[in-house]
Amino acid sequence: MKTVDLNCDLGEGFGAWEMGNDAAMIELASSVNVACGFHAGDPDIMRRTVELAKARGVSVGAHPGYRDLHGFGRRPIAGLKASEIENLVAYQIGALQAIATAAGHKVTHVKAHGALSNVACEDDMTAKAIAAGIKAVDPSLIFVVLANSKLVKAGEDANLPMVHEVFADRAYEDDGNLVSRKKPGAVLHDAKAIAERVVRMVQDGAVVSVTGKVIKMRTDTVCIHGDTPGAVEIARGVRQALKAAGIEVAPFKRGA
Amino acid sequence: MKTVDLNCDLGEGFGAWEMGNDAAMIELASSVNVACGFHAGDPDIMRRTVELAKARGVSVGAHPGYRDLHGFGRRPIAGLKASEIENLVAYQIGALQAIATAAGHKVTHVKAHGALSNVACEDDMTAKAIAAGIKAVDPSLIFVVLANSKLVKAGEDANLPMVHEVFADRAYEDDGNLVSRKKPGAVLHDAKAIAERVVRMVQDGAVVSVTGKVIKMRTDTVCIHGDTPGAVEIARGVRQALKAAGIEVAPFKRGA
Amino acid sequence: MKTVDLNCDLGEGFGAWEMGNDAAMIELASSVNVACGFHAGDPDIMRRTVELAKARGVSVGAHPGYRDLHGFGRRPIAGLKASEIENLVAYQIGALQAIATAAGHKVTHVKAHGALSNVACEDDMTAKAIAAGIKAVDPSLIFVVLANSKLVKAGEDANLPMVHEVFADRAYEDDGNLVSRKKPGAVLHDAKAIAERVVRMVQDGAVVSVTGKVIKMRTDTVCIHGDTPGAVEIARGVRQALKAAGIEVAPFKRGA
Amino acid sequence: MKTVDLNCDLGEGFGAWEMGNDAAMIELASSVNVACGFHAGDPDIMRRTVELAKARGVSVGAHPGYRDLHGFGRRPIAGLKASEIENLVAYQIGALQAIATAAGHKVTHVKAHGALSNVACEDDMTAKAIAAGIKAVDPSLIFVVLANSKLVKAGEDANLPMVHEVFADRAYEDDGNLVSRKKPGAVLHDAKAIAERVVRMVQDGAVVSVTGKVIKMRTDTVCIHGDTPGAVEIARGVRQALKAAGIEVAPFKRGA
Repeated sequence: MKTVDLNCDLGEGFGAWEMGNDAAMIELASSVNVACGFHAGDPDIMRRTVELAKARGVSVGAHPGYRDLHGFGRRPIAGLKASEIENLVAYQIGALQAIATAAGHKVTHVKAHGALSNVACEDDMTAKAIAAGIKAVDPSLIFVVLANSKLVKAGEDANLPMVHEVFADRAYEDDGNLVSRKKPGAVLHDAKAIAERVVRMVQDGAVVSVTGKVIKMRTDTVCIHGDTPGAVEIARGVRQALKAAGIEVAPFKRGA
Repeated sequence: MKTVDLNCDLGEGFGAWEMGNDAAMIELASSVNVACGFHAGDPDIMRRTVELAKARGVSVGAHPGYRDLHGFGRRPIAGLKASEIENLVAYQIGALQAIATAAGHKVTHVKAHGALSNVACEDDMTAKAIAAGIKAVDPSLIFVVLANSKLVKAGEDANLPMVHEVFADRAYEDDGNLVSRKKPGAVLHDAKAIAERVVRMVQDGAVVSVTGKVIKMRTDTVCIHGDTPGAVEIARGVRQALKAAGIEVAPFKRGA
Repeated sequence: MKTVDLNCDLGEGFGAWEMGNDAAMIELASSVNVACGFHAGDPDIMRRTVELAKARGVSVGAHPGYRDLHGFGRRPIAGLKASEIENLVAYQIGALQAIATAAGHKVTHVKAHGALSNVACEDDMTAKAIAAGIKAVDPSLIFVVLANSKLVKAGEDANLPMVHEVFADRAYEDDGNLVSRKKPGAVLHDAKAIAERVVRMVQDGAVVSVTGKVIKMRTDTVCIHGDTPGAVEIARGVRQALKAAGIEVAPFKRGA
Repeated sequence: MKTVDLNCDLGEGFGAWEMGNDAAMIELASSVNVACGFHAGDPDIMRRTVELAKARGVSVGAHPGYRDLHGFGRRPIAGLKASEIENLVAYQIGALQAIATAAGHKVTHVKAHGALSNVACEDDMTAKAIAAGIKAVDPSLIFVVLANSKLVKAGEDANLPMVHEVFADRAYEDDGNLVSRKKPGAVLHDAKAIAERVVRMVQDGAVVSVTGKVIKMRTDTVCIHGDTPGAVEIARGVRQALKAAGIEVAPFKRGA
C-alpha cells in the first residue's frame, strides 16, 4: 500500500493573536511544522501545539524562520551571514525540542519557513546554512526539502535524512520549480482539481506543469495550507481523495 | 582543599549592542550564565559565548529571563501563569542547549535572571514554575538557587540537583535575605572588603549580616558581576584572595 | 436631546495577525481608540484604522499601552519610572498624530490601554505620568478617564479636558469602582440587560451597583468591546436601545 | 563667510544598551539624527537626546529605519510595499515630534537610516515612499538626501526642502556614488586626510574620486560618525580644520 505524508504549518499565533485553524488542520495532517518564535509562535503556543500533535499521533517538526514577527517571516532579509542563519536555525530547533520534551513528544523534522525557505530554494549559502544548523543540533533530524530546489543539494551534502515536499495547491513550471506567486495561476483554488492532482503525484511520482508537461517528482510529503477557511476544505478533499485511491496518509519515515 | 565556583552572567548583548566585559570576566569565572534571548542575548552571541566558555574550560548554564528586551529583564511582569513561566524557562534552556551542542559544549546548570529571579525568591508559584521548567527539559540540570530563598524549597520539591549561591558584593539581612537595593549599603563597593568577605563565606560557610550577626550559609557558588569596569577589578580581587587563602576556584559539581 | 459617545478599541492587530471585528465595530462606535504599536497595532494598521474612522466620521484617539506585544499590554509591568511612562505615552500619541495627519484626520483624545490603565486607576504616580505625557504633547487632547478612578484627579491636576467613561458590560461596587474581573459577575453577558443599563446610565447619570445601590456617575462615554462575536451583538443592542430612548450617539465634545 | 552643517546619528542605544559616544559627538555636530525606535532608540533615549540637543543649540532630525532592532536597521528587508514604507516613516517622525515637543524642541529634518537609506539611494519606489512619508506628516520638514542618489529626485518630485549630504570618511566613484563598502578603500581612516577633504568639499563644492577625478557636489551637510572612538577624533579633526579654514559650522537652513 502506498503512503504519503500530509504536512501543515501550525502554531502560528503569537500571544493573544491567532492564525489559521489549528484544530481543524491537525485532523487532516500526519505531520506538523511548528513555528518557533521568530516569525510566529511562542513557548505557550508551541506547548499547546505539540500536546495537540502528541494526542493525535502526529509528527512534529521545527519550522524556523527569519526573526521577523511583524512580517510573519515572509520578507526576505538580506545581509545575514551563513553563521547567523545556522545559529538562528539551531536556536529555534532547540527551543522546540525542549518544549517537545516537556510535553512528552519529540521533534523529528525541520522545515524552513516563508522567506527563509524561499531564499534558500535559490541561494546555496542560505540552503547550506540551514542544513548546517540542523546537522549541528542533531544529524538524525529529517530535513524537509522542496523538490528540485537548492535545499536538496544542501541536505545531500550535509548527509541529512531528507523527505521531498510538493505543494498541493501550487502550479509548477516545466523545470520543476514552483510558478512564482507573482504570476497568474500560481495558486490553485479548485478543491477537486487539487485533490486529483495530489493523488496523481503520489501514484505516478509526477506532476503536470503549467504547459502540460509531465515532470517526475519525488513526493514524500504534500504541504497543505490551513490559514484560510477554504484551505481547510481543500485539505479535507485531498485527504478523502487519497483514501478513495487507497493511499494511506501517515507520517514520513526517515528518508532513504 | 576547599573549592568554590565563581559564576558570572555573560552574553548579555543583543545584535549590535554589547554589555559588560565578557572577555575579562571569562578569565575570572569558573561557570557562566548565558542570556538566552528573552532579556538579552541572541543566537550569535550565545554561540560566541559558549565557544569562549568551552575554550576556557568554563561551565555553561542557561540564564532565562522574562520576555523583556527593553527592560533587560529587570522589570517584574505580573499576570503570568505558572505554565507560562514553565514554558518560557523550557524554551530558553532548549535554545541554549542546541547552541551549546552546535558548539561542542554542554549546558550544565540553570539560573534565573533579574526580575524573574527576584520575584521567584519571594513567590512560591514562580519559584515552582521555574523548577518545573528545568525538570521538564532535563532533571539532571543543576538549579542555581539563591541561598535562603523560595528557590531552595522549589528545587528540593522538584528533586533537582542544586547549588546554593551567594553574592560577593551584596549585604545580607539577619534572616539571610539580601538587603533590598532600595536601602543604602545594599551593594558593597570596597574591593578588599568584598574579597575578604568571600573568603570567609567559603571558609566558614557563613556571612556577616548588616548588624554583625554571623549567619550560616551554604556557599557553593559566588556570583560576580561584570557589567561595570569596577566590577572586573572586584572580581579579580576575589579570585586573588581565594587563591591566597588556598581555595581552588572550579566549576561546581552536581549538588548533593 | 441627550447625547452620549460610544467608544471602542480598534486596530489591535499586528502585522499579519488580526484582532476583533473592526469593520463591524466602527459602525457602532462614535469614537475609537487606536492601538499605537506598543501592545498592538503597527503603522499600516493604524493608517487603515484612521482612514476607516475618517470615512465614517468617527473621532480618533490614541490608545497607548505598555511595551508588551506578547502580553497584549494586559500584564502589569512594574519598575517603570514616571518619566518612562510619560515618554512612552508621548511617543505613542505622536506616532498616531503623524499617521492621522497623513490620513487627513486628527487625534482628539487619549485613553490608556489594558494594564497601563488598570495600574493607573489605582496608582497616583502612573496616573499622573500618563496625564503628563498627554499634556507634554498637546494640552488640548481630551483625556478619557474611568469614572471614580485615580485618573480623574490626575487629569484635573494637569488641567486636561476630560471625559468620564463607564463600561457597558461591567458590574460596579458600591464605591463606584469596577468589580474585579477575578470575582464572579464582574462581566455582564445579557445583551438586553446591558442595553437597559446603558440607557439608564445616560438618562439618570447613575449606575446600579452589585448590591442594588444607585451610584451617581458622570457618563460622557460608554466603552463597548469588540473582540468577541457576542460583543458585537451587545454593542448593537446598546446602540438600538439608545436610539429607542431618544438618546443620540455622537463623539464626545471637549470636556467641561 | 561659508558655513556647513555637520550631522551625526545619535540616540542609538536601546533600553539598557548604549551605542557610540553621544556626549562627545553632540559637541562636534550642528545637527543630529535621532533614532526613533525601529532600528534603535526608545522614548527615554529619544527624550534625553533631544534635551541634550536643545541644551547645545543643535538641530534635531528624525532618523527612521526599518523595523529591525536585532540587525540595527542595517539589513535590507525586501517585500515592503510603498505604503508600508511611507507609514513607517510617518510613524517614526511623529513619535519623535511628540518627544521633541515634550522636551521643548522641534524636529526640523529627516534622514533615512542604514539599509532603508541604502536601498532608497538606488530604488525609486523606496526613495519616493520615504519622501511621501515625510510630506504626509509635514511638507516643511527638510529632507536630508545623499548627493547624487535617487533620494534627490524623490525629494524634488515631492517638492520637499532638501539639503545634500556628503560623507567625510567615504570614498567616491567617478559617477559621484559612494564606493561600496565591499571594496577596499571604501572607508577612509586617516584623520588629517579626511579633514582636508571636508574643507575642500565645502570650499570647492567638489570631491575627488578614487581615480582622482574632481566631481562637483553640493555639500550642505557632512555626515560624521560617532560609533567608534577613532571616529570621535576624526570628527574633532574635521571641526578644527573647518574652523582653521574660516568655515563656520552651523545647522543647515531650509534648502533652496
